[in-house]
Amino acid sequence: MESGSRGVAPGGVSVSAVLPAGGSGERLGGATPKQFCAVQGRPLVSYAVRAMERISWISGIIVVVSPENIETMKTIIEKYGHKRVTVVEGGITRHRSIFNGLKVFAENEFSSHLLQKPEVVIIHDAVRPFVEEDIVSKVVMAAKEHGAAGAIRPLVSTVIASAADGCLDHSLERARYRASEMPQAFLFDIIYEAYQKCTDYDLDYGTECLHLALKYCKTNAKLVEGTADLWKVTYKRDLYAAESIIKENLSQQVCVITSGKENLAQIGFLLPESLKSHIKVEAISKSVSKNDSCLQNIISGQCYNFVCVNDKRCAIQETQELVDMLEKSNTPLLCPVVLISVHLDTSENNSFSIGMEDLAMIKKFARETKKKNILVYGLLIQYK
Amino acid sequence: MESGSRGVAPGGVSVSAVLPAGGSGERLGGATPKQFCAVQGRPLVSYAVRAMERISWISGIIVVVSPENIETMKTIIEKYGHKRVTVVEGGITRHRSIFNGLKVFAENEFSSHLLQKPEVVIIHDAVRPFVEEDIVSKVVMAAKEHGAAGAIRPLVSTVIASAADGCLDHSLERARYRASEMPQAFLFDIIYEAYQKCTDYDLDYGTECLHLALKYCKTNAKLVEGTADLWKVTYKRDLYAAESIIKENLSQQVCVITSGKENLAQIGFLLPESLKSHIKVEAISKSVSKNDSCLQNIISGQCYNFVCVNDKRCAIQETQELVDMLEKSNTPLLCPVVLISVHLDTSENNSFSIGMEDLAMIKKFARETKKKNILVYGLLIQYK
Repeated sequence: MESGSRGVAPGGVSVSAVLPAGGSGERLGGATPKQFCAVQGRPLVSYAVRAMERISWISGIIVVVSPENIETMKTIIEKYGHKRVTVVEGGITRHRSIFNGLKVFAENEFSSHLLQKPEVVIIHDAVRPFVEEDIVSKVVMAAKEHGAAGAIRPLVSTVIASAADGCLDHSLERARYRASEMPQAFLFDIIYEAYQKCTDYDLDYGTECLHLALKYCKTNAKLVEGTADLWKVTYKRDLYAAESIIKENLSQQVCVITSGKENLAQIGFLLPESLKSHIKVEAISKSVSKNDSCLQNIISGQCYNFVCVNDKRCAIQETQELVDMLEKSNTPLLCPVVLISVHLDTSENNSFSIGMEDLAMIKKFARETKKKNILVYGLLIQYK
Repeated sequence: MESGSRGVAPGGVSVSAVLPAGGSGERLGGATPKQFCAVQGRPLVSYAVRAMERISWISGIIVVVSPENIETMKTIIEKYGHKRVTVVEGGITRHRSIFNGLKVFAENEFSSHLLQKPEVVIIHDAVRPFVEEDIVSKVVMAAKEHGAAGAIRPLVSTVIASAADGCLDHSLERARYRASEMPQAFLFDIIYEAYQKCTDYDLDYGTECLHLALKYCKTNAKLVEGTADLWKVTYKRDLYAAESIIKENLSQQVCVITSGKENLAQIGFLLPESLKSHIKVEAISKSVSKNDSCLQNIISGQCYNFVCVNDKRCAIQETQELVDMLEKSNTPLLCPVVLISVHLDTSENNSFSIGMEDLAMIKKFARETKKKNILVYGLLIQYK
């Protein structure tokens, strides 16, 4: 587990997250539970974990899976380099699984290592792959103040109640009701008390954590308007939608790598800053290295666009290392990867021909990498 | 308007359909209302119209659009060869638009031509592109018996009511409620009476036709469990999902064309029958002709797989005509079209070399059509 780099949560509280991932996915109509279905070659649950992991002030992430999927989940964590994740065995219903997840923070005998109890715990579904820090932060803040909070969305269809004969009994006025979505957050002591107090009927047939907090702890959750992308992957069409959204996101994402040398630091700062208004930028300020876990994570997160700003003397070598890493990741098998190698000539001795030689080398190199679906472009900038 | 080929509706009733398509699509986040968004190059509303049109016992289809989209809608009808469709100007809300659509069957002064009042009227959204005859038939049958009927689906999220302070008031037990979807159907006299009696508040803020039938005509609608594909395209992700589903459907659809000659009729029957268990088959039993509206409809419906069973003497000529039609339709611009030309040699004089000559000709022909993204394959069968 990494440490030291944790950000500070809104309101300065300590925060952890529980992701129930024990569902059978029967509505999807396939054999694989939906949280383990591959979307762009990567299981759905891994996107949800990554979304949580990217929020630096979430200290621990508990993923609750059914006994038969524990090994699968551990393999996913290993493969995609997830950090701060603990896998916990789930119960037979969603509520029982969440309860098991919470126990890791409270009951010594439940897990091999008792995790530190957070002030606020986030509950988020493994099948909601898209969740931004902004909404998580809002829900956590509201939970700190109100004891419980959850994201909501307007209803898409009118909700109706049927009578015993299968006919319409009454319909609800759509404007007065909302769909309860995720993430939700709770003061840990409140939701844990609710789970301890609730009945077996609640644990077996209930669907709503906010309801438990209200019923057993008299806590009226604050409702926070969520974004459309919080929706839950339920049917096969939702997998199609998730795949298209992920593809779109990937095409709008670029990773800028600048080697750590002092005279490049300015570029390493300016380029991402000016790109940020157009696309999502991940900036790394160090040399490419096979052992760099940050870069490994970006590659395994399926980034398809790279800008490498090099001091010209080690240009090809660094580009070659990145190409090797990309090839090993299998990323280029799904889509072409674009790699722009920027050669920054900062030497006083400005013989242009030396730069041209480098570009000719890159050109030859690019012909080779193209066969591997990696499109390398060279750019020479004389920078004084 | 075609006539004479109308099928008989379930229960022998006369049936028409009203498709409200007046929405602004603000939830989609784009300038184009969602019903006019192109999915695989074709507006969403055209899929919904086609779904209704394919059901032979629906006599008239009323599409209700906002005044500024009347010309757009007429162009769509023209372009995709829709039949039995009348375009009607909508009101400022969904209920007002549906009411306008119903008036075409009841009020002489409302439309240039009063359509014959059906016993049962179907109401279906223009933004629900997938609807099968089976569920439409069930809803119509139920409406005939109960006066009103509508498709329902299980709730995906828990529904909650919020208090004035933005906190949770109560949550609904998910199992007791359903999402009201489309299609719905009504005895025409019931829904028309409901719209005539209802208040301006209903017309401006209501969302549920079943509710109007209950409130103003004391008709408890029969609720019919629908399929997952009835969902409403609401957000951008739904357009992505619709596109993926359409692509999947297209790849699983084949059109078998057999020329009308007697000795081919048997093949024309046997081939589609044996294919039917694997994929969706549209069978046409006549020669390819540029003026054939049935074949034109299949092509404009973006079928990508064709099997042409020819008497060998006119093989190339028929294939050429089909290639011309495909090229003109722009279908091959989106995806490669596969055309298997089966040459059935039924002559007594079985000189194999003549067949081989035909195949050589097809090979040369295929090289040309490949440039147009039409992949022609030749198959010679000696059939006695």
